[in-house]
Amino acid sequence: MEKIYMDHVAGTPLLPEALEAMMPFFREEFGNPSSIHHFGEEAENALTEAREKTAALIGAQPDEIIFTSCGTESNNFAFKGVPLARKSKGSHIVTSPIEHFSIMHAIKAMEKQGFDVTQVPVDKHGMVAPDDVARAITGQTLLVSIQHANPEVGTVQPIAEIGKICREKGVPFHTDAVAGAGIEPINVKEMNVDLLSLAANMFYGPKGAAALYIKKGVPIQPLLDGGIQERGKRAGTENVPALVGMGVAAAIAVKEMDQRRAHLDRLARKLRAGIKERVEHLFEFGHPEKRLPGNVSLGARFIEGESVLLFMDMAGIAIASGSACISRSLKVSHVMLAMGVEHGDAQGSLLFTLGKDNTEADVEKVIKELPPIIERLRNMSPLYKRKTT
Amino acid sequence: MEKIYMDHVAGTPLLPEALEAMMPFFREEFGNPSSIHHFGEEAENALTEAREKTAALIGAQPDEIIFTSCGTESNNFAFKGVPLARKSKGSHIVTSPIEHFSIMHAIKAMEKQGFDVTQVPVDKHGMVAPDDVARAITGQTLLVSIQHANPEVGTVQPIAEIGKICREKGVPFHTDAVAGAGIEPINVKEMNVDLLSLAANMFYGPKGAAALYIKKGVPIQPLLDGGIQERGKRAGTENVPALVGMGVAAAIAVKEMDQRRAHLDRLARKLRAGIKERVEHLFEFGHPEKRLPGNVSLGARFIEGESVLLFMDMAGIAIASGSACISRSLKVSHVMLAMGVEHGDAQGSLLFTLGKDNTEADVEKVIKELPPIIERLRNMSPLYKRKTT
Repeated sequence: MEKIYMDHVAGTPLLPEALEAMMPFFREEFGNPSSIHHFGEEAENALTEAREKTAALIGAQPDEIIFTSCGTESNNFAFKGVPLARKSKGSHIVTSPIEHFSIMHAIKAMEKQGFDVTQVPVDKHGMVAPDDVARAITGQTLLVSIQHANPEVGTVQPIAEIGKICREKGVPFHTDAVAGAGIEPINVKEMNVDLLSLAANMFYGPKGAAALYIKKGVPIQPLLDGGIQERGKRAGTENVPALVGMGVAAAIAVKEMDQRRAHLDRLARKLRAGIKERVEHLFEFGHPEKRLPGNVSLGARFIEGESVLLFMDMAGIAIASGSACISRSLKVSHVMLAMGVEHGDAQGSLLFTLGKDNTEADVEKVIKELPPIIERLRNMSPLYKRKTT
Repeated sequence: MEKIYMDHVAGTPLLPEALEAMMPFFREEFGNPSSIHHFGEEAENALTEAREKTAALIGAQPDEIIFTSCGTESNNFAFKGVPLARKSKGSHIVTSPIEHFSIMHAIKAMEKQGFDVTQVPVDKHGMVAPDDVARAITGQTLLVSIQHANPEVGTVQPIAEIGKICREKGVPFHTDAVAGAGIEPINVKEMNVDLLSLAANMFYGPKGAAALYIKKGVPIQPLLDGGIQERGKRAGTENVPALVGMGVAAAIAVKEMDQRRAHLDRLARKLRAGIKERVEHLFEFGHPEKRLPGNVSLGARFIEGESVLLFMDMAGIAIASGSACISRSLKVSHVMLAMGVEHGDAQGSLLFTLGKDNTEADVEKVIKELPPIIERLRNMSPLYKRKTT
């Protein structure tokens, strides 16, 4: 059975062009970029090129890109490293309640260390109001960190406006752009961003390759202390093949971005309309317009998203319910709760994240397979029977 | 020109078997192990197998292996995470002055946070005395961290004895075994080790894959906060292909260890004898017997190791002078200084780290190429002329 993959927010397939570029670094060019000999030079040159390409994806300078191992590391690095480096100036951090777990749990870690964290609210679409950020900033604020796009509900925040406020107030601004970088157009200069997290596996690059953009002059304390790699900001032998793959994926993302976005947008509209036509008691999560193009985040009442997932998987279709990082923990999403979604409704979350290789036929298959699964589960639900009989 | 690689301590070539095992995870099996569908399950199963194989390399249980992105991350995680998790019980850490930079710089980070760090001395062979560790431990000690084998000088520490002392005193014991795991036989139970760092790229696995062994019950604070991966101890999407490669490399290392060690030992003896026979004013670093089998660490007086490196590279031979992590920083090794080597002598460091694929012919080529390079450099050295004329 041909499998259909609609869980791109949990990770994308790797571009064949990226894999091809990686192969020499798994074979003959296996050197350590820090070594002073032929093998080291080849690796170092490859990193330089990967850094340029990654920088170009977000309008940064190459020396503003620090390579890391994953989006979680980039987020931890920024969220902990900037306040720790600036702690003589205050103890306050501003963020939101719909951040990725790598920020949400870093909040707790920083609070334990004595930092105060303000989480500005979001509206029912999961949108942060820039004015709320402005009001939350005090003379003690060391960092503002607001997600660029939410992976679970697709909402894209007004990053440029929030960045402008932070710049006016002289507070470094970090955005977790892991879910959006390589998909949405991003320019760190135009968007007034001081730090930005991105991960290759969200834009058809490999796992194990990610980056933190750090604007020149922004102070940050390393998370990984050690050797002089990444200009002393991130120690550890660089994962050369994966970073080379990220560079290639970034360059292709730049070139194909408009075309991919148009494709994703068309498929997402078709999918959303097709499901809504065939399934009752359905609602949509996230902002109606300001959203990631391939993200279809729905809530089906009276059932658990988890169960739908399993039946869909049996039908050869991979989707998600909430984020991959919590899917095995069976908890209700903090993002849904922050948006004011009721606990019961949040459990019916169905997340379809489309990719560039999904087709009209894939969408039609999903539209065909999903409704009977939901109906079957609802017919087993006492809650549903009570409501509808 | 056929290149000769003798810088395995900076990173090894990747085993073809490991690369082959990784390929499906770059192609069809690209899922996120946290996802609940076919693609996620396949990735999760692959991680389970990689974890079992990695555990078997060091005599651990699979659920005692936490995957990380590099040796530096494993070392930072252990060295910071254990004292932070136990800080209600004291503020003291015991380590040595010949640790890898990922410990040396973590010492500074921990001291900034108010921890006291004692560095027990090493003798002229770079050897730690277990009694010194015993004397250094106080009622306040939260962690002892002593390197298993030193990458620069090859000395292998009496880990089992140190571990026994730590266990008797009830202090968790970490060893940085990055340079030795997969080369030397290691059994964490027999060696009384509570935490152990290892990295795949030291035993013919890929870059981007490493692990920290954490004995059941040892408390540790995460370095990367976020999702529920690695049982809440290390968040971030796992680098599935690289970890699969590490598993395969670990399994092959177990199988071939004795044979590889005998081969390395034979080549190293031949190399050491051949160079000593042809080059004057030479001395050997590290312990004469208790050392990594493929590690030939020499000091040539009156010259800079750096210059030898460059001429050797022109002759197609890749060697090192000090560790790769500092080679671009042009500093004298802290390891040499701790061993009492004079500043000038330390600069003449020449590090040959042999690998399983090096041949007798490689060794003969090095023995032939090296002496005239050293002679040429010495003839340009005013220091050498003064000494010898």
